[in-house]
Amino acid sequence: MSGAESVVDIFNGLKNKGAVVAPEPVVKGWLRARGVAVPDGILATSPDEAAEFAAGAGGPVVMKLVSDRVLHKTELGGVRLGVKGADEARVVFAQIRAASEAGSDTGFAGVLVEKQEESGIEIIIGLQNDPHFGPAIMLGVGGIFTDLFKDVVFRALPATREDIESMISELKGRPLLEGFRGAPRANIEALVETAVALAKFGEEFAPIFESVDFNPVIVTPSGATVVDAKLVLAAGVKDDPLGFEQSRINHLDGFFNPASVAVVGASASEGKIGNVIVDSLVNYEFKGKIYPINPNREEILGVKCWPSLGSLPEAPELVVMVVDLKLVPGLMKEIAAMGSHNMLIVSGGGKELGGERESVEKEIVALSRQLDIRVVGPNCIGAFDGESRFDSFFHHQERLLRPPAGPMSFITQSGTWGCGFLELAETVGVSKMVSYGNRVDVDEGDLTAYLARDARTKVIASYIEGLAKGRKFLTAAHEAVVEYDKPVVVFKTGRNATSAKASVSHTGAYGGSYKVYEGLLKQAGIVAVDSFHELYAASKALALQPPAAGPRAAMLSNGAGPMVNALDLFPAKGLELVRLERSSVSLMRDHFSFFYIVENPVDVTGSASAADYEFVIRALMDDDNVDIIMPFFVFQDTPLDESIVERMEALNRESRKPILGCAAGGPYTARMSAALERVGVPVLPDVAQWTAAASALVQWGAI
Amino acid sequence: MSGAESVVDIFNGLKNKGAVVAPEPVVKGWLRARGVAVPDGILATSPDEAAEFAAGAGGPVVMKLVSDRVLHKTELGGVRLGVKGADEARVVFAQIRAASEAGSDTGFAGVLVEKQEESGIEIIIGLQNDPHFGPAIMLGVGGIFTDLFKDVVFRALPATREDIESMISELKGRPLLEGFRGAPRANIEALVETAVALAKFGEEFAPIFESVDFNPVIVTPSGATVVDAKLVLAAGVKDDPLGFEQSRINHLDGFFNPASVAVVGASASEGKIGNVIVDSLVNYEFKGKIYPINPNREEILGVKCWPSLGSLPEAPELVVMVVDLKLVPGLMKEIAAMGSHNMLIVSGGGKELGGERESVEKEIVALSRQLDIRVVGPNCIGAFDGESRFDSFFHHQERLLRPPAGPMSFITQSGTWGCGFLELAETVGVSKMVSYGNRVDVDEGDLTAYLARDARTKVIASYIEGLAKGRKFLTAAHEAVVEYDKPVVVFKTGRNATSAKASVSHTGAYGGSYKVYEGLLKQAGIVAVDSFHELYAASKALALQPPAAGPRAAMLSNGAGPMVNALDLFPAKGLELVRLERSSVSLMRDHFSFFYIVENPVDVTGSASAADYEFVIRALMDDDNVDIIMPFFVFQDTPLDESIVERMEALNRESRKPILGCAAGGPYTARMSAALERVGVPVLPDVAQWTAAASALVQWGAI
Repeated sequence: MSGAESVVDIFNGLKNKGAVVAPEPVVKGWLRARGVAVPDGILATSPDEAAEFAAGAGGPVVMKLVSDRVLHKTELGGVRLGVKGADEARVVFAQIRAASEAGSDTGFAGVLVEKQEESGIEIIIGLQNDPHFGPAIMLGVGGIFTDLFKDVVFRALPATREDIESMISELKGRPLLEGFRGAPRANIEALVETAVALAKFGEEFAPIFESVDFNPVIVTPSGATVVDAKLVLAAGVKDDPLGFEQSRINHLDGFFNPASVAVVGASASEGKIGNVIVDSLVNYEFKGKIYPINPNREEILGVKCWPSLGSLPEAPELVVMVVDLKLVPGLMKEIAAMGSHNMLIVSGGGKELGGERESVEKEIVALSRQLDIRVVGPNCIGAFDGESRFDSFFHHQERLLRPPAGPMSFITQSGTWGCGFLELAETVGVSKMVSYGNRVDVDEGDLTAYLARDARTKVIASYIEGLAKGRKFLTAAHEAVVEYDKPVVVFKTGRNATSAKASVSHTGAYGGSYKVYEGLLKQAGIVAVDSFHELYAASKALALQPPAAGPRAAMLSNGAGPMVNALDLFPAKGLELVRLERSSVSLMRDHFSFFYIVENPVDVTGSASAADYEFVIRALMDDDNVDIIMPFFVFQDTPLDESIVERMEALNRESRKPILGCAAGGPYTARMSAALERVGVPVLPDVAQWTAAASALVQWGAI
Repeated sequence: MSGAESVVDIFNGLKNKGAVVAPEPVVKGWLRARGVAVPDGILATSPDEAAEFAAGAGGPVVMKLVSDRVLHKTELGGVRLGVKGADEARVVFAQIRAASEAGSDTGFAGVLVEKQEESGIEIIIGLQNDPHFGPAIMLGVGGIFTDLFKDVVFRALPATREDIESMISELKGRPLLEGFRGAPRANIEALVETAVALAKFGEEFAPIFESVDFNPVIVTPSGATVVDAKLVLAAGVKDDPLGFEQSRINHLDGFFNPASVAVVGASASEGKIGNVIVDSLVNYEFKGKIYPINPNREEILGVKCWPSLGSLPEAPELVVMVVDLKLVPGLMKEIAAMGSHNMLIVSGGGKELGGERESVEKEIVALSRQLDIRVVGPNCIGAFDGESRFDSFFHHQERLLRPPAGPMSFITQSGTWGCGFLELAETVGVSKMVSYGNRVDVDEGDLTAYLARDARTKVIASYIEGLAKGRKFLTAAHEAVVEYDKPVVVFKTGRNATSAKASVSHTGAYGGSYKVYEGLLKQAGIVAVDSFHELYAASKALALQPPAAGPRAAMLSNGAGPMVNALDLFPAKGLELVRLERSSVSLMRDHFSFFYIVENPVDVTGSASAADYEFVIRALMDDDNVDIIMPFFVFQDTPLDESIVERMEALNRESRKPILGCAAGGPYTARMSAALERVGVPVLPDVAQWTAAASALVQWGAI
């Protein structure tokens, strides 16, 4: 590529010739111009040229078919390693040309003859235009490791040097680079340089590639060389591939604290969705004005019923829809005419069914922008606000507890987990919850941007099955973390649906897989967790406790079993069992009965009182080796008296280190756990949640 | 080894010469005599002998120091690959001899010169005398895979051909053997033959080895060859290494249904352990006779108190000890004199503290055998029986619920998880529970053998931190499974404590690690799980539901999120999302509203009624593609009416396939879940437990 020629010109030039891949010598030329090491070589168009290079190579050469059509050169017999000398090179040239000519439309353009690289650690670096996130870079240990153990890491482009370094540090096969089993250490610095350059290359060429495999990149003690490069061209030029839609927060307040709410499709029949929603708004704590809309009723649940939106005495701030989706576009014009800007569609029956119904959704999308109506849904349970006590749920209050106001907010693609989160949060409380269903307008990005600015929200939790606008969400989340110092916790599910997808490139095979999410969530500073219950646990811990200064944990309990279990989970959660300072140990040794075990984990035995817990926790607060204090409570043990609540409240007020409890049992245990949570000490109900919550505090401390 | 020479003779012969390892040519001779392929080679004692063999080898040779002292030949410079021709062989012989002579006490006994094997897949096979389980065999994909990915599998010896085949099938790197990335398929049959022969070798030589590494065993398309063999000698000859202590069940009934119970250390002070235990026996449902023992009291909690065991009017069937452990040996003699055979020691302060206290425990062990007193404990919460209502717990009944009688029994090394299990089992019920603490006498093996024969126990659950007598337990568990058709479920924790242990062999490095447990539990037919809550979930499912005929699962829900989460866990749990029969799909399509999604997983949406659930479940019962039916219930959704309970009861009675529910939420959800469990349908509270329970039913079906 000359300085003057743009990537679009290149693309058009190639496409005009019918290319599906960029010829390898061309790609390597681009790389060389950008300071990336590639093997010495020539594009031979005759056996003699190949022979001449091979004769002077001073070692074996690699010979590869050059073509702008062939996606799988090796399968075609187009790649030969270890070719030695002029005669063999001449023969191989002829064989490759013959193999090419035996295929159909292979576009034979010569043979690339290169010096064969010395052996080293094989790394794969890839670039892809992810359908949800845009351009991303992948790095992995190559060959079998990529294929059998999925040992690859992703980041979005642009990627910084720090991003590249953290990718390498996350590889399971990293010890191979560091000189495994007495092998010399590979030049990791050269690998970093190369990957940084390839990331830049990715930014520059993003408009025109579908995916690129640099596979292998051979890393030796002396350097890193891109040995093979396959750039698969995009179907068309991508306009602004690194750009993304901005999050929009206008009018979003209307979904949480509406002065007035119209319910279109309100019903007088008990048990109907349109009845339960009105019941919940009328008969409980919500203080706003309610307008049930139903042309066949005078009143519903004692509230005057209105025949249509047009008949209302004022523009309702929010309109909740529980009618057939096909009626919604027409109603949107009425809403706009009244000057309202918020519509929440509970009804399903949209794109999830395809066909005609999908086009109704598209019409709603268009009208939303055109008429400045923000839309939540369709196909969702809607919104909840802990302060205003507004909710749009079709769940009787006896069946679904509405929690008090509190520091957590939750954005969820599943209404079921929305319900689950609210009920778990009975003691800690929720600021806002949104189930947004098919997200024709308001999505995770908008809501994250909105909650970042919401003073009542201390933690943003998010359950995601798939992101339509990944880069938009990541940017909003990163802003929440960096600008607003607010933790964002994500549980991403739907992890293995796409992993088996066939692909023309190694990198592309991971498109949409959890590997991509894992890397990009981390890059954005998001705390990622592995189950819904861990999501709640991490959010609660982040809402109630300070971040941990480091990963060094100390545990104590009046029953040792769960601490043993937790230790098994420590390595995967990035936690360390610290050795206590000698002063802490001797302090406890002097204070306690001889049968208490005063090393970490501290076992105060079934005889422990609340005062014993207090003594140990105070010692751990003063111990500089400890970053996070993790008491397990066997509340069933009778010697553990109920003064534990006030003692923990006082300790929690004093401590600058996070304290994270755990307890498991029946109704008494649940009551005591809730009492501790009400004074600010989270108590998790199982060991997986306990360690996940601790891990979240450590991750947040590091961010 | 000649036919006449025993392994003990061999051992003595080697040890007399100061050997720490068996010389490799000797080991390979033994292997060759047992039909195992090893490379052609000679033991050269001079450069000329080495040269002669190398000259005639027809290819490169490997040359290795032969010694009965050197544990790490490679580090000493004692191994050389790719030696070509007579001249090089002569030079290398001299170099190896020189390297050996440069070390101290290397016992140079020549150089093994062998034809270098062609390259192939490197497998490691190991043998070890595990401290807890005795002789075991390990198999893994060699080199980096063993080291970085711990890709190894264990079985106890003797190991059958089926054991060997299942080991190979469990390797993550198995695709390498099957012809990965276009490579030829390795001769897996030859690998099986070799491993079977090495397992036999392991049985035969078990008295004399500490560990053996066959590393690598090279497997090519044509065969499998043991290229290197390192047999580390045991410190002394092991007598009957494959033998084990038999489980003993005599008198164990007395811990569960005692006609009379003496409590030594009974206390009148509220909150004291010795008071709570008496309270629980006297003031609740236990009907046996109670004898509080305390010389300073006339009565405790309204029951006559006795000054000593000797003063009792009868021999109590069970004596519960809550006094200092040092007093116990003396009291045992009194117990024996009275003719009692059961003692349960709640008190701690034994071996966990070391020193003098450890010797008290040893005395108790000796007296137990001598006086025919079965002992549970010390350092435990003891026993519970759902029928007799006996328990020895120092937990007030208000703090710790005692569940009704039911089909599950639980053996636990952690009293805390004992409490946890009982409280979780409030709806399903428990037959027997034992927390056995320091297990000076009664252990997991004894209890498993006892519960196998207990008609009220349908499932034996076990929480294990470490087994002292592993082979005893495995044998008892295998008997329960095979002879009594009773599932045994184990959660083994303490998984990473020993993995970093330094060792002279690759195989030995795994001593006591979870890898060993994992393989041996599976071999015994035990269902292994990965958390305490999964242990309870699997036990409940096995207690209430029939085994699954296969892994093909169908899910349905009125809220899709949790099903998406479950799908992520399916592969690791060995579950498959089946495609429904076309007849089932069209049956549902005709019956339901257009917006229900009637493929697996079936989404009946938030509008679903109990009748809708019934309709789908009935379709799944009739669908031959479905082995296991997994409904998720969003009980919060108001349209799901409470007739679901009676409908599920009827379905459960009719179904020969297992039905396994899941639901998550607050008090209403808990109430509905409990109602379903009372009619026999397990409802798990989270997705991890749900899939773990389903996996247990599939595993049990396969066993």
